[in-house]
Amino acid sequence: MALIVQKYGGTSVGSVERIQAVAARVQRWRNDGHDVVVVVSAMSGETNRLIALAEEIQPEPTARELDVLLSTGEQVTTALLSMALHSLGCSAVSLNGGQVRVLTDTAHTKARIKSIDKERIQSHLQQGAVVVVAGFQGVDQDNNITTLGRGGSDTTAVALAAALSASECQIYTDVDGVYTTDPRVVGNARRLDKITFEEMLEMSSLGSKVLQIRAVEFAGKYAVPLRVLSSFEEGPGTLITLEDESTVEAPVISGIAFNRDEAKLTVVGIPDIPGVAYRILGPISDANIEVDVIVQNVAEDNTTDLTFTVHRNDMARAAEILQNTAEQLGASEVRTDDKIAKLSIVGVGMRSHAGVASKMFGALAQDNVNIQLITTSEIKISVVVDEKFLELAVRSLHEAFELDQAV
Amino acid sequence: MALIVQKYGGTSVGSVERIQAVAARVQRWRNDGHDVVVVVSAMSGETNRLIALAEEIQPEPTARELDVLLSTGEQVTTALLSMALHSLGCSAVSLNGGQVRVLTDTAHTKARIKSIDKERIQSHLQQGAVVVVAGFQGVDQDNNITTLGRGGSDTTAVALAAALSASECQIYTDVDGVYTTDPRVVGNARRLDKITFEEMLEMSSLGSKVLQIRAVEFAGKYAVPLRVLSSFEEGPGTLITLEDESTVEAPVISGIAFNRDEAKLTVVGIPDIPGVAYRILGPISDANIEVDVIVQNVAEDNTTDLTFTVHRNDMARAAEILQNTAEQLGASEVRTDDKIAKLSIVGVGMRSHAGVASKMFGALAQDNVNIQLITTSEIKISVVVDEKFLELAVRSLHEAFELDQAV
Repeated sequence: MALIVQKYGGTSVGSVERIQAVAARVQRWRNDGHDVVVVVSAMSGETNRLIALAEEIQPEPTARELDVLLSTGEQVTTALLSMALHSLGCSAVSLNGGQVRVLTDTAHTKARIKSIDKERIQSHLQQGAVVVVAGFQGVDQDNNITTLGRGGSDTTAVALAAALSASECQIYTDVDGVYTTDPRVVGNARRLDKITFEEMLEMSSLGSKVLQIRAVEFAGKYAVPLRVLSSFEEGPGTLITLEDESTVEAPVISGIAFNRDEAKLTVVGIPDIPGVAYRILGPISDANIEVDVIVQNVAEDNTTDLTFTVHRNDMARAAEILQNTAEQLGASEVRTDDKIAKLSIVGVGMRSHAGVASKMFGALAQDNVNIQLITTSEIKISVVVDEKFLELAVRSLHEAFELDQAV
Repeated sequence: MALIVQKYGGTSVGSVERIQAVAARVQRWRNDGHDVVVVVSAMSGETNRLIALAEEIQPEPTARELDVLLSTGEQVTTALLSMALHSLGCSAVSLNGGQVRVLTDTAHTKARIKSIDKERIQSHLQQGAVVVVAGFQGVDQDNNITTLGRGGSDTTAVALAAALSASECQIYTDVDGVYTTDPRVVGNARRLDKITFEEMLEMSSLGSKVLQIRAVEFAGKYAVPLRVLSSFEEGPGTLITLEDESTVEAPVISGIAFNRDEAKLTVVGIPDIPGVAYRILGPISDANIEVDVIVQNVAEDNTTDLTFTVHRNDMARAAEILQNTAEQLGASEVRTDDKIAKLSIVGVGMRSHAGVASKMFGALAQDNVNIQLITTSEIKISVVVDEKFLELAVRSLHEAFELDQAV
């Protein structure tokens, strides 16, 4: 007898048949004696359909009205899943964001949850019903509909699990867990039974798009056990937990994340004076361009170079801004490169193990992969390499750290 | 400077182009200095699409969840129309049933409005915004979503107009007003400038499906001036008003309504004893079959006949039930006929004019139309005739009462 929060994404509820399959799965958990709260996304394709309608009318739709529009997608799914549960003889009731009351700030299209009322959900659970909640949405203090932005349903699920002190928050997706790296790149990539929140944060921000990063942060903050599972097949998935004593025995490296969405920009020959980094990155940030890696090395001959990466789509705009700044600063040159890839090894174990970095660089050197940039954090080492070496580099590292073998 | 409530049905908002046309019309009323509250239906086809999805999952969808599902249709339209107004530079805000707060009873799929909060709408109007309200929906006292049943958006509009003491409630449809009879049957049928609520009630319940009967009742009860107009062309439409002194000069007959959806059932040779009508019609009502006309004539030889009409789709079921009752009562026979049509002349003027009935029967006799049944009310005389005579009968009466000529 536990309270489980389950979240099903758009593809998991993308058709009548899929919704019926979800209902059957929910009913099995009920039959095992558990209380179940289900959070659902809009049926796959629906959100895009609604956005297309909106943009046909208003190229940049009003944020408040876009939220009113998009929130209907999840509401439709809650009703259909409740009906599917009813047709199996399973008591169920749907609630939208306002009915639960998921209270958010007023930042339409990217609202943040401020609080969740648990009374109504608990009352339905006590009456034996499965509670089906519309993910991704809430209301502000004036009862205006808000949405949480992309992947917001994950956040809804975790926030509900935290508010209800659920035993587990299960995120059902189209993959059966978190892998040591992308199985499409490394054939013997291994599903992890467990991963810590910190590792998961590094993995998801680096392109393992299994879980929304905000949801993982939220789960870590409120110590909600999070499990990633497949909605298409049975299996234990991957449990995302707090780092505890067991992680002393944890592997040094848990996984390898990578992405090829970035481009690299370098300003060469900047005078080495205070405030230069701010003068370079300030205008980039003012233009709402997100910067990922930033590397500045020690100065030589009173000049230095600064390199940073942005999303490839932003490279042209960033380069234009940078050219201006470079002229003002008297820098000698701006270089851009969008043929790069970033890869990172992630693991809480590296804190207590020396030589992880040198092992990484050694493995890459052995396969003649030139490293362009290096950055490190407590539990992560990232390198930027020429895009064409990406798969080779990932495979080398996967083998070097023996990630195919369970600990 | 007046407050106008406008309601646009599904075909009037059936596409992006149509929504943009509605926005342009609303903006014209704003530019003329009026405050405007707009009530919208779901885009045409959307409600049927959602019902089909629901029925695929649950042949008889749970009423509560069906309301959750269907209410999204109107919400989508409110968001899109608000965006269309914004793109014209017109301030606008959408509100769903719960946000307005349209409080209803808990009768899902056919809820009745108990009260409407006007504060939020008034506050938005004071700020210069057009308020776009989702029709057809409300919430019960526990904030469960309810819907008002077919045509409920008309009811929402009238109820809002009453709550806000609007100067006029304008119902935009695909016809440009209320006609003396169906122009497809009588070529020179005439659009009425005015009609009383009572006449409109009789007209709409008899098949002139311009307005939902509940909305007309509501408008009459709260003396809300109601106007039916076309959303596709300009024009004054038809104003539906309280009967006032001007109706002393009103025409005897305002219009001719008809329908061919009914079937006639007769029980012949019933013993003429008290309680017979109840014993015959009770089981019909218990089977949720709606009965329209009921006629029982005086008894002869201690037996009598009772005739009533039901919707054609219900005739077979009604006949089966009736056969049972007839045997129990010792009646001699049950007769059924679904080749009938009902037509009615309607007019508040007939109260003060003698000879209306005889003029009607005379006109029908002259064209050899045999009358099968006659019923009358204060402002209406209805006859049932063989279906094949319907058009002939309507045309005869339209001419006899000179309905093509404005008074």
